[in-house]
Amino acid sequence: MNTSIIRFILLYVVGFIGLFLLLPVIVALIYHENVWSYYLVVAIPCIIAGIINSYLKPKESSFYLKEGFFCTGAAWVILSALGAIPLWLSNEIPHYIDALFETVSGFTTTGASILENVEALSHASLFWRSFTHLVGGMGVLVFLLSVIPLAGGDGSFNLMKAESPGPSVGKLVPKLKNTAQMLYLIYLGLCALEIVLLLLAGMTPFEAINTGIATAGTGGFGIYSSSIGGFNVACQWIVAIFMFIFGVNFNFYYYVLFHHARDAFRMEEVRMYSLLTFISIGIITVNTLSCSAGLFDALTKAAFQVTSIQSSTGFSTADFAAWPQTSRCVLVLLMFIGACAGSTGGGIKVSRFILMGKAVHKELISYIHPRSVRKTLMDGKPVTHDTVRSNNVFFGTFMLVFFVSAFILSFENLDFSTIFTAVIACMSNIGPGLSMVGPTKNFLFFTDLSKIILIIDMLAGRLELFPILMLFHPNIWQDLFAKRRLKELKHAGKVLNEDF
Amino acid sequence: MNTSIIRFILLYVVGFIGLFLLLPVIVALIYHENVWSYYLVVAIPCIIAGIINSYLKPKESSFYLKEGFFCTGAAWVILSALGAIPLWLSNEIPHYIDALFETVSGFTTTGASILENVEALSHASLFWRSFTHLVGGMGVLVFLLSVIPLAGGDGSFNLMKAESPGPSVGKLVPKLKNTAQMLYLIYLGLCALEIVLLLLAGMTPFEAINTGIATAGTGGFGIYSSSIGGFNVACQWIVAIFMFIFGVNFNFYYYVLFHHARDAFRMEEVRMYSLLTFISIGIITVNTLSCSAGLFDALTKAAFQVTSIQSSTGFSTADFAAWPQTSRCVLVLLMFIGACAGSTGGGIKVSRFILMGKAVHKELISYIHPRSVRKTLMDGKPVTHDTVRSNNVFFGTFMLVFFVSAFILSFENLDFSTIFTAVIACMSNIGPGLSMVGPTKNFLFFTDLSKIILIIDMLAGRLELFPILMLFHPNIWQDLFAKRRLKELKHAGKVLNEDF
Repeated sequence: MNTSIIRFILLYVVGFIGLFLLLPVIVALIYHENVWSYYLVVAIPCIIAGIINSYLKPKESSFYLKEGFFCTGAAWVILSALGAIPLWLSNEIPHYIDALFETVSGFTTTGASILENVEALSHASLFWRSFTHLVGGMGVLVFLLSVIPLAGGDGSFNLMKAESPGPSVGKLVPKLKNTAQMLYLIYLGLCALEIVLLLLAGMTPFEAINTGIATAGTGGFGIYSSSIGGFNVACQWIVAIFMFIFGVNFNFYYYVLFHHARDAFRMEEVRMYSLLTFISIGIITVNTLSCSAGLFDALTKAAFQVTSIQSSTGFSTADFAAWPQTSRCVLVLLMFIGACAGSTGGGIKVSRFILMGKAVHKELISYIHPRSVRKTLMDGKPVTHDTVRSNNVFFGTFMLVFFVSAFILSFENLDFSTIFTAVIACMSNIGPGLSMVGPTKNFLFFTDLSKIILIIDMLAGRLELFPILMLFHPNIWQDLFAKRRLKELKHAGKVLNEDF
Repeated sequence: MNTSIIRFILLYVVGFIGLFLLLPVIVALIYHENVWSYYLVVAIPCIIAGIINSYLKPKESSFYLKEGFFCTGAAWVILSALGAIPLWLSNEIPHYIDALFETVSGFTTTGASILENVEALSHASLFWRSFTHLVGGMGVLVFLLSVIPLAGGDGSFNLMKAESPGPSVGKLVPKLKNTAQMLYLIYLGLCALEIVLLLLAGMTPFEAINTGIATAGTGGFGIYSSSIGGFNVACQWIVAIFMFIFGVNFNFYYYVLFHHARDAFRMEEVRMYSLLTFISIGIITVNTLSCSAGLFDALTKAAFQVTSIQSSTGFSTADFAAWPQTSRCVLVLLMFIGACAGSTGGGIKVSRFILMGKAVHKELISYIHPRSVRKTLMDGKPVTHDTVRSNNVFFGTFMLVFFVSAFILSFENLDFSTIFTAVIACMSNIGPGLSMVGPTKNFLFFTDLSKIILIIDMLAGRLELFPILMLFHPNIWQDLFAKRRLKELKHAGKVLNEDF
């Protein structure tokens, strides 16, 4: 392992966290809240570490998939661990594990909360919670790539690969830095548009900004206990439409913006995602008609909840845990499916299900016509064998992590639907589940063990399992503290150049 | 498609059903019950069809995977459709869909029942229910292969492949017929041993025979509403041990019997299956200690329920739906995992989980050491690439079928745990689930639509998905009624030799 580049990237991330933490300081000063000091006290050492780091260029700048995945996993753990400190220091969340849960939930854009009374939080902390969604949505390493010239060229691509959701990652434009910038441009542009529309629809600036950035990251932290339920219908529809928008593969917007509209509308994933959304809204509208105030009310609530769950945002305008079983079942299925790859949304991803469907069909065809050789196509282009294999393994891994988590949570002696939906809501980065973790409830009652498992699930879900699972593999730590490698290098006479 | 061989095999199966249906006729005569006529009235035409068929040898005897899979799927549908008629005619189960559900549940060795009062059934019908388990356990086509010399040689292997559970099927001995006989010999031998032991432990002959054959097929239909709960502890332990035994890969017994004991104990799947059993018994014993009459009682119930669920039998001695959540969660996980491949048990199979675990580990390693090429090994031998791929696809297919079924069942507005466990209990051929389908309940309350879905799930689960899914694929029916093929053949001047 190239430890010097890992150190360099991780401390760069720490520096950025320091800068990000200055934002709640500003918010606190605006609202004359005295929590600013807790944010500043964490920000300053982080910024100093970042500045010192920028002078200590890595000795060896090449890095590979292993370093990319490790960096990503480690960066997100550090990000969350540091980001939780102010919430804990200020005593707004007195228990550190709870603060960590809340921050991981923020950065992973889950939106599951342990807070019983959101309104009691300071404006600064409310903003910090929402802001973590913005950082986590597109990814902190993608952000890093868009602003700093990282040596190593192709190696950096592995960072993006580890952090971007979906079975395969493409570069939109030849240069990675430009791709990263393009993605952030689309992301922030759409976010700004939503904030403006929400202001026009009657939200206050603080409400609009918080709601806007929490939608952009498909996060779901609300600044009121009623989530979006307290806002007017116009606001609800704007949020619903933007939740849908942020669940679409960002390549779609790139194609639309740069005159490849035909390519955009040919994207199978986006078509399937839209189809699933409309069908689900239809089913739920009909199914909840009897418990709503008319068709429009049912449609509004169904549209909001479907886009919220499918995009993995997790905002709510209705207590869907109390809906009829068919609607709840549709929502649970959507929790597994999730949003498009290459969006800010979570879940297994629509494209993975499309690929799996094609693999199943191919298997079936191989029994019917054993000698036929078929290529799996996606958007008219052949999918590499490796992508199909990884995709299949992903499903298995997802299920294994899901079962192990559900098993450990079952020590709490809660009902099935609570355990089951708590795990999937965290793994798919949605937020609320059903029963005791429904939209009107919170995650405070879990034991620390369960919270830690759910924290791991949120991180694993956001980073698509492998960068986090890798942190549990002994090989990677052997490599890092590498006595063996040290010996090898000593043998090769290269140890003096190495930076351990 | 070679329709002549398909017709030949399917009518052979019909002939055997006719013979099998004579057994309940005998039972009815012994107990002076007048249901014998209903069984006989179905048996006679079946036997006649079978006899006529045996004179009409197929014109072309070669057949491939496609025919093998189609035959298997179709044979099981016919088997169930015919086997249900006597129960329905005799008015013991007045609704045909219910009778079909009960019969499919029998043949697929599920053991899920729609009967509210089992004791009300005639001895003949009780015996028929249990006997379907015996036929379904090892497979009716494997039985066919063991008794009739089927032309086509290698082609017959495809029948066995389609009907035998597990990711890969091996021949124990060079000749397929001998392999099939060997399997049936071990199967019936173990079954007979259990019956003798149950007699010694105090069961009546009728109880011992029914319980014995229902255990052998890992079925789970009991002849009392209390399942095995009403028998003494010795009987319970005998049944528990034999449920464990019938969940083991039968190759294990072959190796033990024929002096390959070292190979037997090296089988990873059997070791993992045993380990899972012991760990689960341990967890549940501790977890249910407080609600049992002492350690031995807790251990007896835990051992019985774990072996029952893991082997997919579904007998019960306790209402495990009322156990603490940890125990229920262990049981639900075991429902998914299931028994060993090559046993009479259901579920996804232990070996598939082992293979999936290895694939996940390989994926992880491929990120850490991208250039390393590793072969996946099982029992020390390399696993073919095709087996690994099929295995991965199997998991995906299982999940897709599971989700679609759960979605359709959700129209019933029942709780999650009922829907969820009803589907998995049917797909894994277990029988009872939790909540409203718990061990003290039954499946009668479902609508016909849900029952049909569960019937498909049971068949799909027993035949490992693809032979049943294939029946829903339009290509196969096109092939069968083949206008296109007819044209092709006409073109080639071969149509006169074909038998449509």
